[in-house]
Amino acid sequence: MKKINTSPISGTQELLPLAQSTFNNLKTKIFETYRKHGYANVETPSIERTEILLAKAGGETEKQIYNVFKTGGTAEKSTEALRFDHTVPLARYVVEHENDLLFPLKVSQLGLNFRGERAQKGRFREFYQCDIDVIGRERLNLAYDADVISTLLETFNSFELKTPVLARINNRKILSGLLKSLELNEKAKEIYNIIDHSEKVAPEKTKLDLEELGLDEKNVKKILAFINLHGARSFVIKELNNLEIGNETYQEGVKELDEVLYLLESADLTEEIEADMKIVRGLDYYTGTVFEFILPEYKNLGSVAGGGRYENLTSYFAEKSFPGVGGSIGLTRLFYCLNENGLLEANDEDLLDYAIIPVSEHEFDEAFSVAKKLREKSYTTTIVLTNKKLDNKMTYATKIARNGIVIGEEEVNSKVLKSKNFQTGETSEVNIEVISNPEDFWADEA
Amino acid sequence: MKKINTSPISGTQELLPLAQSTFNNLKTKIFETYRKHGYANVETPSIERTEILLAKAGGETEKQIYNVFKTGGTAEKSTEALRFDHTVPLARYVVEHENDLLFPLKVSQLGLNFRGERAQKGRFREFYQCDIDVIGRERLNLAYDADVISTLLETFNSFELKTPVLARINNRKILSGLLKSLELNEKAKEIYNIIDHSEKVAPEKTKLDLEELGLDEKNVKKILAFINLHGARSFVIKELNNLEIGNETYQEGVKELDEVLYLLESADLTEEIEADMKIVRGLDYYTGTVFEFILPEYKNLGSVAGGGRYENLTSYFAEKSFPGVGGSIGLTRLFYCLNENGLLEANDEDLLDYAIIPVSEHEFDEAFSVAKKLREKSYTTTIVLTNKKLDNKMTYATKIARNGIVIGEEEVNSKVLKSKNFQTGETSEVNIEVISNPEDFWADEA
Repeated sequence: MKKINTSPISGTQELLPLAQSTFNNLKTKIFETYRKHGYANVETPSIERTEILLAKAGGETEKQIYNVFKTGGTAEKSTEALRFDHTVPLARYVVEHENDLLFPLKVSQLGLNFRGERAQKGRFREFYQCDIDVIGRERLNLAYDADVISTLLETFNSFELKTPVLARINNRKILSGLLKSLELNEKAKEIYNIIDHSEKVAPEKTKLDLEELGLDEKNVKKILAFINLHGARSFVIKELNNLEIGNETYQEGVKELDEVLYLLESADLTEEIEADMKIVRGLDYYTGTVFEFILPEYKNLGSVAGGGRYENLTSYFAEKSFPGVGGSIGLTRLFYCLNENGLLEANDEDLLDYAIIPVSEHEFDEAFSVAKKLREKSYTTTIVLTNKKLDNKMTYATKIARNGIVIGEEEVNSKVLKSKNFQTGETSEVNIEVISNPEDFWADEA
Repeated sequence: MKKINTSPISGTQELLPLAQSTFNNLKTKIFETYRKHGYANVETPSIERTEILLAKAGGETEKQIYNVFKTGGTAEKSTEALRFDHTVPLARYVVEHENDLLFPLKVSQLGLNFRGERAQKGRFREFYQCDIDVIGRERLNLAYDADVISTLLETFNSFELKTPVLARINNRKILSGLLKSLELNEKAKEIYNIIDHSEKVAPEKTKLDLEELGLDEKNVKKILAFINLHGARSFVIKELNNLEIGNETYQEGVKELDEVLYLLESADLTEEIEADMKIVRGLDYYTGTVFEFILPEYKNLGSVAGGGRYENLTSYFAEKSFPGVGGSIGLTRLFYCLNENGLLEANDEDLLDYAIIPVSEHEFDEAFSVAKKLREKSYTTTIVLTNKKLDNKMTYATKIARNGIVIGEEEVNSKVLKSKNFQTGETSEVNIEVISNPEDFWADEA
């Protein structure tokens, strides 16, 4: 027999049952919290026409796309690929089903995305992304930006992590207006880039980068002071107003940021939010509110969720305008990071309520009958159906269940069952009616 | 703008939110029922090394595999592909993680599989398959066959379909032994094929096929009588014993079938099961118990679940023997069929508990505060954050929620909120403390 490599391919998640259960619990909490906030779940196919996926993408994204082709098909002519995010398929979905949808549309998407990234620690090629989006037709009220951020924050709160989460919130109109007022808008793209990277480098490097761009000392100072501005709403908004920048875009951005933060305070999330002028999030996509979530005590983890407002989700597929706001939790990466840092409540066990332990095959029928009754009462129950010695069965049972019920000849005759709590050692009578089968199936063998 | 086709690719499922919710409910019931029976969920990556997927496969399966390759990569050298079932990845998982797993291992897998089938009605290229398997090390008690079948039956019962489900159960050793005793084992493969297809053709055709294989009249008659044998355990087992076939394999098969059926009766599933000698299920894979579930009132739907016992799951990857028994529900196909035939409880609506309707932007803050409190009490709640007229907001609210709470100036001042049940028209006071924000955010605009 040829020796085959049985490890999962690199850049994918494969967990043992206990860790999988912890992962599934997080996924369920996300699903339920999204629903609790009024987001309806939808699911698009994993495979899309390549032209749909590339309508928006380009550059790095295109290189990362996983094309698919059938064996026997011609690979070069592959016209289908695996989705790399939920946003592009959602845009297609909205255009395709517009007439059957109710706007503003609040939707959630929890599923796998695929990117051909170079494999490295914490980078995944196949990963769960859990998105929410609100899509309007022609227009969408700013308050939905607060709706998305509050939903994501409450989702993190539902995880009951050992460390707090912080939403760093900004509005791209503020920086954009500032640069216009400084007559630097022609260098906006480069400045955005420098700001976006400023957290990963020393402050001196950022200063140098701005100087090398040809900015004069005064402007460099202004921008550095600006991007260091962060904190509570009242403080930051006051400081932004004190700059006395007359530019309309700037003023609109400040007003929008103020309103979004105020609504989050109304939802009792003051502790969890901060205005932060350093948040930019990429270049072309977002047009207003932008946000990133971090775990402030573990800044090295980087952003654990993010999103923002986009003027038009579907500009590549439709003439109509569908403005939206959305955010996403990268669950696979988040789970990996939380585990690495021991930030998830230690889930040492994922035990069933009951293990039924028939002493021999003669009691298998009783065991099936008892298990049925326990499950009807919603207890998770398994039956140890091996032919091994009782000791061995008990050891197995203690590893998978909190309580054990041994069924032997005596129990079948007396119709009295006892349940043993494996942790405390206490036993108690089981309050279920044991129906003894009229026929003993194995009697003739005995 | 180039007009782009926005329909999902053929052979995939894409649902509107209401149908998606019904689908998700079925998936959740499967997940929970599997868990209730002691099956631990695991998830392997969607993408596997092609050599793993092809270790077992061949012929049709190989042609249906979706290979993947990165843009810029060389398609011909693609070494990875999307999984086409859960069984092969599970085999790899068991070999890879053997030392960290507890045997017998009871696992469930719910996820997408991919097959490059020719698109046609009800055939999917990307589909959910929901499997359970019990894997033993070196040996696995027959009673686990009953464990798998009872779990799948209880899963169907949890769906509360408008039509009953029936598990048709057989043991391949019976037919195998019969053919040996008739000295027909050299033609076993062809005979299996004919039986496998016998339900899809007229009885005369089956007779003709057997005759054309060179079987004499007596043997044809015997086989036809045999495959028509089906019904309750007591009847079928008695008939099988009456045939007085001395072959050991035959007798072992009858005994195994009897035991599996008896245990299912012990789990109070007598109504849902039948022994049926026509069930063969493919050729090479299964070695003992085999079963198929049908909806007897809708035979045209074919099999809605199936599975069986396999001697060695991992023979392609490991020297060790890992016998197993498993079964699978093809959820995407099942959901499609149930919908086509109106067999799911009509889920006309998927309404939230509450829609909060602020009269104007001035009450958005109150709306966020009230929504927070309702969600803390586990009510699913959305806020209608549009700037439209109240009538328009109310219409929207009635489409997404069961109850509406209007918040206007009066409500903010009086601190008394009323909830309206949209179906009955009744209103009742809302029993939550409304915290009026000390600051009226929009006051300066008024």
